Amino acid sequence: MNTVRYPNAKTRAALLQRPAMEADTAHKTVADILAAVQQNGDAALRKYALQFDKVKQDRLTLTAKEWKEAVSQLPKDLKEAIRQAQQNIARFHRAQQRSEKKITTTPGVVCWRESRAIEKVGLYIPGGTAPLFSTVLMLATPAKIAGCQQVVLCTPPGKDGKIHPAILFAAQLCGVTAVYKTGGAQAIAAMAYGTQSVPKVDKIFGPGNRFVTLAKQLVQQQGVAIDMPAGPSEVLVVADETCVPAFVAADLLSQAEHGPDSQVLLVTWKEALLQKVREQVQQQLKTLPRQAIASAAL
Amino acid sequence: MNTVRYPNAKTRAALLQRPAMEADTAHKTVADILAAVQQNGDAALRKYALQFDKVKQDRLTLTAKEWKEAVSQLPKDLKEAIRQAQQNIARFHRAQQRSEKKITTTPGVVCWRESRAIEKVGLYIPGGTAPLFSTVLMLATPAKIAGCQQVVLCTPPGKDGKIHPAILFAAQLCGVTAVYKTGGAQAIAAMAYGTQSVPKVDKIFGPGNRFVTLAKQLVQQQGVAIDMPAGPSEVLVVADETCVPAFVAADLLSQAEHGPDSQVLLVTWKEALLQKVREQVQQQLKTLPRQAIASAAL
Repeated sequence: MNTVRYPNAKTRAALLQRPAMEADTAHKTVADILAAVQQNGDAALRKYALQFDKVKQDRLTLTAKEWKEAVSQLPKDLKEAIRQAQQNIARFHRAQQRSEKKITTTPGVVCWRESRAIEKVGLYIPGGTAPLFSTVLMLATPAKIAGCQQVVLCTPPGKDGKIHPAILFAAQLCGVTAVYKTGGAQAIAAMAYGTQSVPKVDKIFGPGNRFVTLAKQLVQQQGVAIDMPAGPSEVLVVADETCVPAFVAADLLSQAEHGPDSQVLLVTWKEALLQKVREQVQQQLKTLPRQAIASAAL
Repeated sequence: MNTVRYPNAKTRAALLQRPAMEADTAHKTVADILAAVQQNGDAALRKYALQFDKVKQDRLTLTAKEWKEAVSQLPKDLKEAIRQAQQNIARFHRAQQRSEKKITTTPGVVCWRESRAIEKVGLYIPGGTAPLFSTVLMLATPAKIAGCQQVVLCTPPGKDGKIHPAILFAAQLCGVTAVYKTGGAQAIAAMAYGTQSVPKVDKIFGPGNRFVTLAKQLVQQQGVAIDMPAGPSEVLVVADETCVPAFVAADLLSQAEHGPDSQVLLVTWKEALLQKVREQVQQQLKTLPRQAIASAAL
């Protein structure tokens, strides 16, 4: 972690420069994947699973046995933590439900905004270096509270052809309708166009690498809604003398470990706190499974 | 207007197919314009004004005289109508201001969403076949209510080098900070990067043709926020026997006249109403200044 004291306006601008993805170079690759899935459906998904994930797939859906195993394999304390997190997220989002005021702009003309749940939504959960079950919780929980009828989830299988049990447990807990073993730009294409296995959805949510992000941007141009083009992770923590240094360090590391391109900032005006947070970051880094990635980001 | 009675699922899907813009072909043109404005600032804006708008520009801003003339030239009843519309829009948006509930998810952890006004916003108002002063009202009014400090507006000048007085009157009424005579993809670039005259903004709003829409999508990839990639106009009116046929017809025509690619739909289960609306549409079309465009859309 670098320390910059009293940065001037120019330094501040440089420090706050957001990390951007280089999407342009992947344009043709992604456009070709979209076209192949639109034309060949499941067959294209299988082809790309073999090519990119090194997995030969008979089926894109999960068997009842796989679902059952996922729940039985997961440690009890992790299940409890996921349940607790889901309840917290649900409590937060339920508070956002409310009715709109109706406004009479001119006698006889009544105007209001009305929220109606999107019928079919698709969630993309990246694979790769860590099972992002928190993302499942944070996407699927508001979808269910809003009243979305169909909530499907796509995520790439590991080299063993399986989905991490924590992903499946979180999906089950949140009431996800169906999970499909497909990832990357091809998964976005599957949810945008529909295939034999994967239903076409109205809006696609979730983070992803630059291929996934570009695929979302391209299908958006074709009329499928997306949440946003997600970039690398960012966090800025403002800390004063009342903060617990261990918590501040944990908050910074939780984003730093997302990827070497994560942007992690701490703003403080207490020299003593700064030192304590630095110590905590070093200490917590030692036991972090994703130490190398977090260190690179810092 | 075509009438389709009791459409089946397949026909419904075809009828509801949204008009899409062909953006791909303009990619290089727009990328070149963005790069030129980023590099050459005002000089590039002047070059494109000459090339696309056939206007030689000494300055991109308006003189005090131009502002004064705009207000004095505008017919009194049009000014009154604009004032009335602005008040209605303001009433609607003021009702959307509210504070968020604070949620304690775990003792000591308080979560809430907080709305803060974006400091600098840029509004794009298309030129072309009609002065879109309603767009000025609908973008600038909520920006001011939200508390945006800087609200700048870009719009292309007519062949006489001037901005339509109704645009300027609406901008003045809404408290727009500054108006710049520049349009197209180059105006989006100016607000995204900043030039000698036009300030860089944090978020860009407003409709536009396919070049403008593509420019917004490209600058979004570079970190400037946009409202959305706007497509052609759409309206769907649901009418029962209590509706005033003249109003229904006017609502349909108000979007049909936007462009020949506008999508205009009426859903009704009253044969008598349908006939009356058809008659009203034909009658109102006769006196519509943009009759040819509206007819093409219908």
